[in-house]
Amino acid sequence: MASATSRSTAAPAAVVHSTFRIERSYAHVPSCVFRAFADKDIVRRWRVEDEGSVVHEFTFDFRVGGSEVSRFSFAGGPQIRLDAQFHDIVPDCRIVFAYRMTIGTTPFSASLTTIELAPSPGGTHLIYTEQGAYLDGGESANGREAGSRSLLDKLAVELAK
Amino acid sequence: MASATSRSTAAPAAVVHSTFRIERSYAHVPSCVFRAFADKDIVRRWRVEDEGSVVHEFTFDFRVGGSEVSRFSFAGGPQIRLDAQFHDIVPDCRIVFAYRMTIGTTPFSASLTTIELAPSPGGTHLIYTEQGAYLDGGESANGREAGSRSLLDKLAVELAK
Repeated sequence: MASATSRSTAAPAAVVHSTFRIERSYAHVPSCVFRAFADKDIVRRWRVEDEGSVVHEFTFDFRVGGSEVSRFSFAGGPQIRLDAQFHDIVPDCRIVFAYRMTIGTTPFSASLTTIELAPSPGGTHLIYTEQGAYLDGGESANGREAGSRSLLDKLAVELAK
Repeated sequence: MASATSRSTAAPAAVVHSTFRIERSYAHVPSCVFRAFADKDIVRRWRVEDEGSVVHEFTFDFRVGGSEVSRFSFAGGPQIRLDAQFHDIVPDCRIVFAYRMTIGTTPFSASLTTIELAPSPGGTHLIYTEQGAYLDGGESANGREAGSRSLLDKLAVELAK
């Protein structure tokens, strides 16, 4: 892994920018879906904890200007850290946050995520838009959309509980 | 202006997402251009202060995880606030930050900005990429690219001093 020192003396890989958008329908009203993004205990359950990973820290201050820190690692692997700030919250309608992912001491991505919720005949229509800057030459870009789809699947399971 | 309360009871405008990229050449070495984004006094001079505006606050903690807060107003207008967090800093090469713009108490945009610097025969080639989420239905999107081009013009003037 590159150290902070080596990063300052060699030109880094070009940043890869990309945006993806995922749409989902959930059979629950918007207030219920919103709560799954807003309530610390619920968020920890479906979004932070994962089979095979250990959560070292989870702080979650859900308000505009508030922050989240999640630190976790997979089976003896390096520690991965997520630092997020909430930029807009409209209850039951919208959440906008930016987050940085760091492995060891090296940030490898920064992203701006917009979650929009609207009532639909069946419950809620969700639009998830993520605008990303991938700092490792795009290596981390490949899995991000798939990872986000997988998380939105986990949300469906959580809501069904 | 919508209050926090009225925003929570009416569906907000759809978020408009857009990305722009600006390229510039400066007749100065990358370390000199980088310093104009990193040094608090220099940043204040070319990027924060503006004719006809009053700066009420400027805090600037230039490190990964550090924040900027700028509060200003134009000729008796409402207070505008910028809250930024630095997500990646590679000296003389790259700066990534996310920022939220707020008017009164209402956030109207969140953006992820990447500044990449590379040495060129004439000095520095700069690539400015901004991925934005415009929360007011796109009204603020229109001027953002033009505003950023104008700031990069001001940077050229600052560097020539």
